[in-house]
Order: sequence, then structure tokens, then C-alpha cells
Amino acid sequence: MKSPNKELEEKARAARAASRRMAYLPSEIKNKALHNIANDLLAGQEEILAANQLDYHQAQKSGMNAAMLDRLMLSPERLAAIAKDVLAVAELPDPVGEVFDMRTLPNGLQLSRKRVPLGVIGAIYESRPNVTVDISALCLKSGNAVILRGGREAVHSNSALAKVVREAATRAGVPEGAVQFIENTDRALVDEMLKLRQYIDLIIPRGGAGLIQHIKDNAAMPVIAGGVGVCHTYVDRSADVDKAVAIAFNAKVQRPTVCNALDTLLVHADIARKYLPLAAAELARAGVEMHCDERAMAILKEKPSLKLKPATDEDWGKEFLSLVAAVKVVDSLDEALEHIERCGSGHSEAIITGEDDAAVRFLDEVDAACVYVNASTRFTDGSQFGLGAEVGISTQKFHARGPLGVRELTSYKWIILGSGQVRP
Amino acid sequence: MKSPNKELEEKARAARAASRRMAYLPSEIKNKALHNIANDLLAGQEEILAANQLDYHQAQKSGMNAAMLDRLMLSPERLAAIAKDVLAVAELPDPVGEVFDMRTLPNGLQLSRKRVPLGVIGAIYESRPNVTVDISALCLKSGNAVILRGGREAVHSNSALAKVVREAATRAGVPEGAVQFIENTDRALVDEMLKLRQYIDLIIPRGGAGLIQHIKDNAAMPVIAGGVGVCHTYVDRSADVDKAVAIAFNAKVQRPTVCNALDTLLVHADIARKYLPLAAAELARAGVEMHCDERAMAILKEKPSLKLKPATDEDWGKEFLSLVAAVKVVDSLDEALEHIERCGSGHSEAIITGEDDAAVRFLDEVDAACVYVNASTRFTDGSQFGLGAEVGISTQKFHARGPLGVRELTSYKWIILGSGQVRP
Repeated sequence: MKSPNKELEEKARAARAASRRMAYLPSEIKNKALHNIANDLLAGQEEILAANQLDYHQAQKSGMNAAMLDRLMLSPERLAAIAKDVLAVAELPDPVGEVFDMRTLPNGLQLSRKRVPLGVIGAIYESRPNVTVDISALCLKSGNAVILRGGREAVHSNSALAKVVREAATRAGVPEGAVQFIENTDRALVDEMLKLRQYIDLIIPRGGAGLIQHIKDNAAMPVIAGGVGVCHTYVDRSADVDKAVAIAFNAKVQRPTVCNALDTLLVHADIARKYLPLAAAELARAGVEMHCDERAMAILKEKPSLKLKPATDEDWGKEFLSLVAAVKVVDSLDEALEHIERCGSGHSEAIITGEDDAAVRFLDEVDAACVYVNASTRFTDGSQFGLGAEVGISTQKFHARGPLGVRELTSYKWIILGSGQVRP
Repeated sequence: MKSPNKELEEKARAARAASRRMAYLPSEIKNKALHNIANDLLAGQEEILAANQLDYHQAQKSGMNAAMLDRLMLSPERLAAIAKDVLAVAELPDPVGEVFDMRTLPNGLQLSRKRVPLGVIGAIYESRPNVTVDISALCLKSGNAVILRGGREAVHSNSALAKVVREAATRAGVPEGAVQFIENTDRALVDEMLKLRQYIDLIIPRGGAGLIQHIKDNAAMPVIAGGVGVCHTYVDRSADVDKAVAIAFNAKVQRPTVCNALDTLLVHADIARKYLPLAAAELARAGVEMHCDERAMAILKEKPSLKLKPATDEDWGKEFLSLVAAVKVVDSLDEALEHIERCGSGHSEAIITGEDDAAVRFLDEVDAACVYVNASTRFTDGSQFGLGAEVGISTQKFHARGPLGVRELTSYKWIILGSGQVRP
């Protein structure tokens, strides 16, 4: 029997070899592969769901909590939704082959940049088996080979899904080896994978903060990870109060468990007495608990219908991922900017204002992936931004920032066409 | 006295603070700073050259070789050239603030990406003191703060140059702290610097392969390093022989010590008997030693004027950086592509051909930063490509590939302008 490391390296080498041909695979073949996958997910439903049942029952026996079990579970409806997402990826424009920055130099050389895949993407993820299909679809569309390494708890589901993806893609003419699945779920193998710089161009981790940090700290190759989102909405003194209430409510309540949801509401002192009671009443209606600084508390404390707590130092810069918001009154835009700089995570930040000067300063001075004027931070999303499906949302500045679509899984090469030019 | 680590961290923190304001500094101030630097380099010539003499004599006493001594030495002419390069950076368009991918979403949100600096750049370099000024100028232009850490052998020169840069920039209105210089040349301090992920966004190493590898292996933040250039020129069966001779000659001889110079000449068997004797005679005229495979040797061996050696396995994939070229006869474009895939370093590769099909296959299938048709690989250069001064040439695919100009020292932020939009 082969050693696990040997097998891993062989799969990585095969992915690398396939990636050479993936780089110039016609769009029609890639889209055909995606259509095949969507079809086969539905046609192979019985087998996939049986594999998922195995995982589910094992997880249940091992005492997995209900939220995690729900994430693990597949159903005919969920499979149909996954297939639909694959078809949506097929509909996206092919990012590969785009030629840009084209120009003719004075010596007659024709210079341009041509978009190419990154090469081989390593995906390391936990729990949700749909990631197996999602990441494969995004990698296929962007011309990248992919090495999938899912979590132990979903190994039967992932294996069944990867088999469908691999066979459907190969049938369309995608090079064999372009989709690799690692069945071995030993933790040690992840660390081996993170060393394979010569075969893997980029690692995409999907999962809890612990997994992501471990991968960032240990990968020998670049990593793109969805980051923590500590999101502020700042209600400026000139804000339209009704809009500011609706935006804060939407940012906090519409889906509180995600990274672009509101964490801290900052309110200018000049508008706080008018704004805060209205906003708080609305937030309380959805059951939001407010952790208030002294000044916000002084304004809100007489309302018995509110769920209020005094804010502590830990509340500033905390990602709540639940129906909790920190609330703070500030004396100026400067104080709001300073607070965001100190406590933000560079994800999504919003100002609600009627003053252009304040908007411009906020846009200039806030250093975050997405900076909003008079809108909800909940829009930070590849699909909302019109990029189609997303790999994640980057809070780093290198390579790509914010929602990561298929274009962000590419690089470029310089193409230089001459007629005998030499350098003088 | 402060501990070195404490001092390093304070400088890094000051650079981070300055970078916040650098991000939206008007172009006029940045360009004024660059003009001030160019002026002050000339005005402060005496002091700079005196500091350089200190370094030079110490290096001489310690037995530094002539080539290294020459790299270390400054003169009034060299200072004038450095000042001129700074003025050329001032002339470049400001990459920061560029707005792209602008569009209005169906819900009325106005979405765009705005180019912003990366933040804080750490430059770690050896020997040549001009790097202190070059990197500072490129960082200022691109709105980045910079932390400079030069080598021990040039510490007096670097310190004098950094002082000029810092004072000239501050006088123009650049935030204090934007240019930091680390005087402590302990090797251990480099490793401390590589850990400061919270303050430094990108490390640029400039120096020998050992330094670069050490930094790549140990940096907690992204690294952009100029890579090794193992460059092939492939003369296809349909090549124009005269042009192919001139291009190979230029690629090998015009400046043999640099990364974009020719290392291996691949020649199609159908044209080898006609091409190789002409190319070899021309290369021999410049003193080039040719390491030939058996078939090339069989064609060339009767000419006594040539410097020929049988090629060994080590010659394929070797960066010669001197007047040596490996020469190999191949039977097909496929064999050439396969050789380049196996032995290339992803830097610059060229095909000389008269056939469009061969050119297209070469452009598609060669995975390198710069791919040429009918031109010399010596053109791979930021200035030749019209990017202005360059930080280096990247052989990685992540973030930026090929010549790195000021735009490659930037990222972007998403700007979303609304009128009260919330997510349904």
C-alpha cells in the first residue's frame, strides 16, 4: 500500500499536469463539464444521499450539535440547489483569455496582458459537503485544477460528490486529474499538503477560525481566506433618520450569523437623542440585545421594552454573529473614524450621512475591503456585486480584496509580439 | 536604551500610522517630495559621499571583491543618476485613486473599485545603496509607507540617503514616519521584522538567492521577490534565420548578467544545420561558450573558432548569468514546450517562428510571466514595458506577474454609494 504522503504527492503532481492543459481549455468544454455535473448530481441523487446518511448517522452518534448536523445534511432540495448554483457558474463569462492593457510600444512590439488560471488550487474545508461542488465548479470555470480535502465528518458525502464531479468533468473533455479528492482525513495530511508549494499555487480554507489560522500560519504557498467581519455602521449628524434606522436594522437583523452583518452602531452625539430611540425600538422588535456605552445607555435606559446591557471593553471589535449589537455615541466623524480604525477588521464599513464632505472623508480614510455610503453592509457578497458565485470574502489587500469571484482565481501573463526586435 | 526589537516595533507602528494618511495624500505632495529628494541628493552630495567612503574603506579592508565594491561605491555621477531616476518616478501617473469596474446595480447602488496603496512595505536589501532611494521613491509614489533595512556593508551610505529622503519628504508634507530606516544590521532583526504581520503588508527582498529564499520561507506576510530567470529561446523550423540569429545574440550578449538573458537555445532539427552555424559564429564573436547537446555538437564541431563543450544534465534549467549558453536540437514544437515546462523558471520565454499556429500554441502553452514571439527576452523590464521604474520582476502568479511597477504596489477597495438601500 502506498503511504498517505506518497499518494497525496501523486495526486498533487497529477493536478499540476492537468492544470497545464486546463489553462487553455475552451470555454465550451468547461461549461459542458458544469452542465454535466448539474445533471449528474440529480441523476446520482440516491447514491449521494445514501453516502450522506452514513455521515449523518455517524455524526449524530458522536454527539454533533443540531446546527452542525443541519449543515452536514443533504436532501433532494439541497442537491437541486447545489446543481442550480453550478449552472449559474456556467452562465458566468469565462475570465480566462481576456486580453487587457494592450498597446504598441514605440519599437513596434505589441504588448498585452492575458488572463490565465492560477494553476492548482488546494481547498481545505470542514463540514458542509456543498463546498466540494461549489469550489470544483469555480475552479473548473476559471481553468484551475483543484485538490479537495474535506472534513472527516463529511467524508462519505464529499467522496460521492467528488466522484460525480470528476466523472462528469472528464466526460466533457476536461483533462483527467483536474479534480483530485483526498479521502484520507488525517489532520497530519493537511500539514503535508501545506508544504507542496511546487504543485499547489493557492490554498483556499473554508471553515472555522481555528482551521483558517492554522493554515495561514503553516502554508508554504499563498492563502486566500475569508476573514473575520467586524462591521460598523456610523450614523452621522446629518443622516436621514428613517433611512439610518432601516439600514442599521437590515445590517443587523436580515442575517445576523454572517460576516457582513452589523456589529457596532456608532452614532453622532448631535443626532443620538433623535435616532437612538427609534433605532433601538426597531432592533428590539427583532430581539436584538444592545450593548450600550454610557451615553447611549443614558438615552435609552428608560425604555423597558429594550434588551440593554452596559458595553464592556470586549464588545468593541467583537464579531457577534448573533442578534447582539454594540452601540456607542461619538462626538465627531473623527472619533468614528478612529474607532473603526482601531476596532474594525477591514471587511465592510458604512456611513449614513447627508453631507458629501463626510462621505468623501469616510470613503478615503476607512481602510476596508468595502466602504459604503447610505447602504447596508449586508450587500458585501459576490452575487450581490454581480460577480456570480464567490469563493469567499477577502480582508487582505494582496491579490484580491472583498468578494472573490472566478476572476480572482486567475493571474495573467504578458504577451509580446515582435517582428525581430532586439534591445538596443 | 531601548531593546532593538522594541525600537523596530516602534518604527513599524509609526509607519503603519503614517500609512493611513499616505493613502489619500494628494499627488502634488508626493511629487513635491520626489522633487525635493532629487534636489537634496545633489545638495547633500558631500555628506553622502563621505558616508559612502566609510563603508567603502571598511569593505575594502574586510576583503570584499571588486565587483561587490563597485556595487557599493557612490560617485557624483551615480548620485546624479539616482536623482534622475527619482524624477522619472515623479513623472509617472499616480496609480492611487484610479476608479475602475464602475457600474450601477439594478437596485441603484453605484459600485466601483478604487485603487489604494498596500499600506506598509518592508524592504530588505543588500549592498547597493541606490536601493534605499529607489524603493523609497516607488513607495512614496504609490502612497505606501516604507521600512528600509539595508545590509551591514552599506549602513553609513544607506543611513545618509535615508536621512535625505526622510527630511525631503517631510518638508513636502508627507506624514512623518512614512519612511523608516533600521540602522541595526543584526541578522536576527530581519527575522523579527518578518514576524510583524500586523504592521507590514508586504516584504520586498532585494539581494542574493540566499537572502530571498530565507525571507520567503520565514515571512509571516506576503513577499514579492524577483525570481530566477532561466530563459529559453526556441527557433522553430519556420524561423527567419537572420532574425533568429540577431534575437539569440541580443538575448545572450546584450547584458548577460541579468535575469532576462538567454540561458538555453532550442533549435528545431529541420532548421538546425542552416541556423546553428550562423548563430554559433555570431555568439562566438562575443566570446560566448556553448554547452551543446550531441546533435548540436555534431553540427558545430568542425568549427575551430567556437568555444564548445558537451552539455551535461546540469546545463538544462541553469541560469548562467554570464557568456554561456546551453544549446539543444529538438524534433518538434512539442519537445521544445516539454523542455521549457520542465526546465524553465516561469520568467521569459521566446519562440522565433514564421507560423501562426506555432506562435499561438507557444503563447497558450508556455506558463511564464512573459511570452515572446519573434523578439528578444531582454525586453522584460518595467521601463521597456512602459511601466516606469520597477520594483523587480515577479515569477509568481499571485498578485502580480512580470515587471512590477508602482501599480503593482497597490490594492483596491470597493466603494458602494447608496441612497438607503437594504438587502431584501
